[in-house]
Amino acid sequence: MKDSHTHKKIMSSACKVTDNICLPDSDLPRVVIIGGGFAGLALVEKLKHKEVQVVLFDKNNFHQFQPLFYQVATSALEPDSIVFPFRKQFKGYKNVVFRLAEVEEIQPSSNTLTTTKGKVHYDYLVLATGTTTNFFGMDSIAQNSLGMKDIRDSLNIRHMMLQNLEQAAITCDDYERDALTNFVIVGGGPAGVEMAGALAEFCKYILPKDYPEYPSSIMNIYLVEAGGELLATMSDKASSKTLKYLKSLNVKVLFNEVVSDYDGTIVSTKGGKTILAKNLIWTAGVKGQFPKGIEDKHVVRGNRIKTDTYLKVEGHENIFAIGDIAAIITQDIPKGHPQVAQTAIQQGKYLGDSLFNIIHNRPIKPFKYKDKGALATVGKRRAVADLGKFKFGGYFAWLLWSIVHLMSISGFRNRLMVGFNWAISYFTYEKSNRLIIRNFKPKSLVNETEE
Amino acid sequence: MKDSHTHKKIMSSACKVTDNICLPDSDLPRVVIIGGGFAGLALVEKLKHKEVQVVLFDKNNFHQFQPLFYQVATSALEPDSIVFPFRKQFKGYKNVVFRLAEVEEIQPSSNTLTTTKGKVHYDYLVLATGTTTNFFGMDSIAQNSLGMKDIRDSLNIRHMMLQNLEQAAITCDDYERDALTNFVIVGGGPAGVEMAGALAEFCKYILPKDYPEYPSSIMNIYLVEAGGELLATMSDKASSKTLKYLKSLNVKVLFNEVVSDYDGTIVSTKGGKTILAKNLIWTAGVKGQFPKGIEDKHVVRGNRIKTDTYLKVEGHENIFAIGDIAAIITQDIPKGHPQVAQTAIQQGKYLGDSLFNIIHNRPIKPFKYKDKGALATVGKRRAVADLGKFKFGGYFAWLLWSIVHLMSISGFRNRLMVGFNWAISYFTYEKSNRLIIRNFKPKSLVNETEE
Repeated sequence: MKDSHTHKKIMSSACKVTDNICLPDSDLPRVVIIGGGFAGLALVEKLKHKEVQVVLFDKNNFHQFQPLFYQVATSALEPDSIVFPFRKQFKGYKNVVFRLAEVEEIQPSSNTLTTTKGKVHYDYLVLATGTTTNFFGMDSIAQNSLGMKDIRDSLNIRHMMLQNLEQAAITCDDYERDALTNFVIVGGGPAGVEMAGALAEFCKYILPKDYPEYPSSIMNIYLVEAGGELLATMSDKASSKTLKYLKSLNVKVLFNEVVSDYDGTIVSTKGGKTILAKNLIWTAGVKGQFPKGIEDKHVVRGNRIKTDTYLKVEGHENIFAIGDIAAIITQDIPKGHPQVAQTAIQQGKYLGDSLFNIIHNRPIKPFKYKDKGALATVGKRRAVADLGKFKFGGYFAWLLWSIVHLMSISGFRNRLMVGFNWAISYFTYEKSNRLIIRNFKPKSLVNETEE
Repeated sequence: MKDSHTHKKIMSSACKVTDNICLPDSDLPRVVIIGGGFAGLALVEKLKHKEVQVVLFDKNNFHQFQPLFYQVATSALEPDSIVFPFRKQFKGYKNVVFRLAEVEEIQPSSNTLTTTKGKVHYDYLVLATGTTTNFFGMDSIAQNSLGMKDIRDSLNIRHMMLQNLEQAAITCDDYERDALTNFVIVGGGPAGVEMAGALAEFCKYILPKDYPEYPSSIMNIYLVEAGGELLATMSDKASSKTLKYLKSLNVKVLFNEVVSDYDGTIVSTKGGKTILAKNLIWTAGVKGQFPKGIEDKHVVRGNRIKTDTYLKVEGHENIFAIGDIAAIITQDIPKGHPQVAQTAIQQGKYLGDSLFNIIHNRPIKPFKYKDKGALATVGKRRAVADLGKFKFGGYFAWLLWSIVHLMSISGFRNRLMVGFNWAISYFTYEKSNRLIIRNFKPKSLVNETEE
């Protein structure tokens, strides 16, 4: 800080000497939240207007609505419809501060953390850092394929796909054209299934319009699953209906095949199968991501952080974990809760209440997960639903899926935009603009920056 | 091409031996157009369904509506509203082919051209490659500032601005915060004026909502013009009204100052002035861009290609230039026609008719430019208009500006989206989502790829 400064002056008086990051002065206990996903955002919503100072760090300036990434990837929606700026969300929240920075390390002994932009002190720390794509150490796949855990991933998939379709129109080489127009999706969970369904619909309804030079049979879509069924966490009925829907959309589903290598053109499985494809989308695994400073003994399977039933990281009185990153391991749930949006939202809300009680030395109850059921969609007008005893599929499930997702999106404008695009798509089978704005290259080929 | 190929087979029989780029077989004369801007697109529209094969090359898969770039830069519109995919535009045009490739060189002696994706033969060639930002050889400025001649430039400006505002919230250093929140726009033409107005409105209406921690006085906006007036190509009335409007929005307008150096933090002028600013937007000049193979003797001021009054490049019977790149130099118009959308559209339409006459050995008339007047807007509800004898400013000019621009945008969906966003903005002073999706860095700092 400068002493005799003649420029406009603001805020700097509020910078505490111990902090490098400028924050408003406050006597309230400071709750630092790392990550503004479903869990972090639900927690902020609970703590707004309360007697705490809430500081949210995120490496993006927006919340991402992950369940619709595949629609951005297939050009059905534009990114601005499903990501929402924190500053817009927090308008009028006087005790909430957002700071755009990536947290690199936490120092529990001094209650501080180091970000890419400087240091900051916390009274309570909440890790809500979520998961990233897990390639299980297979470098060739990590280098040549695309995950789907960030809005940028979705945009990269979109641009890979559109660039490859354009290149397929240019090449005179049949082999290259085949490779460019074949798509492999690895992982038969909700992300893989929904992606496969959306791609198949793109192939059925958009391709003939945009690329009249192709027969629609030119695009082959493979869904490769290591296990023996799709949507393994859902009911058998949901699994078999999903398979039927995908088959009717000409998706080639391969079971019990583990993808083990990919050179950018040939996908190889452990069982010795090969598939020619220049488009590989990887949805077969996630792993927790968090800053340095968490002791190894707290880290469990899937790189999650083990917490007690109050979501407190063991051995720390003021550090918590919520969402995908948190694993409450008990006899009843030896693998922790499912890593889905519902868990994250419930844990964020729970911690909002319980943290407030902890600060005021009031008793707290352990976290209890309430399973609200599961929904997955396969293309237009078809979805599967497991809602307690009710397990069904078809048009009504799809309608339910649409309503649930539309109502979950942050922001009135976003809901309007998504609803508008869906309505157009529903009646016309037309999707939004298919633009190649990012210059996508697989990581293995990147040697210069995007223009 | 492979002989015994078992994969799906399409199109390859249509590949001419002389071409590396796959094109549909056709006995019609082939007109190759390079560039799908206003000029190229107008030409395609004239030649559709005619007895010619039209091949459009563009390095993007979309047409860009340049007049609204500044609205994307200031988050008022999303890019998908003002760029439009060629394949969507050309749906049903049986004689029109789009190929995504950058043309690197033309070989007039053999009537071929080389693209990034291979070679192709033409019967008639039309250069519609437009202009790019001209930094007049000043590397420090080229490296550290941003032009506004591509949708990516607009997105980069948006992200530079939002990233710097976030960084300003984090830093405890007053000097750095000043630099991060100061904006300098160089060039007092329509692009600079409209950008300055839009930024000033962002500062007035959005900043207080999104960054309640700042006083709105934190943002300083400078518009630096080398000459003595704004909008020099318009009437004196338009110039003076524009200055009045900008001043009322607190834009600091500097006349007769030539920006000559910029290190990323300090803008320096030839006259010795310095301005502290980490945001520099350069709208002070353009220069023609075209593939290799055009002889130097045909290139005139501003790197434009000299043509005869029929838009034919001198010394070639089958090569034409249209739009910003073309310069018809006569005694009446010693500098060529103005490099604006109107000229480009008129030249594209003209060449569509005259090319058809040339092919059929019919007589052609020279190109005649019809000046339809000029419009420029300064923020909301204010614009200036020169329409022949009628020169006026204010609300009605703004309404006219809005209608003209809305009707010029390609595609019903785009018009709807822009209209929808403008309507929201008009009534609420709210703009669309302000997301930092691109990781913008000045060219001088780039050493890794975008995530």
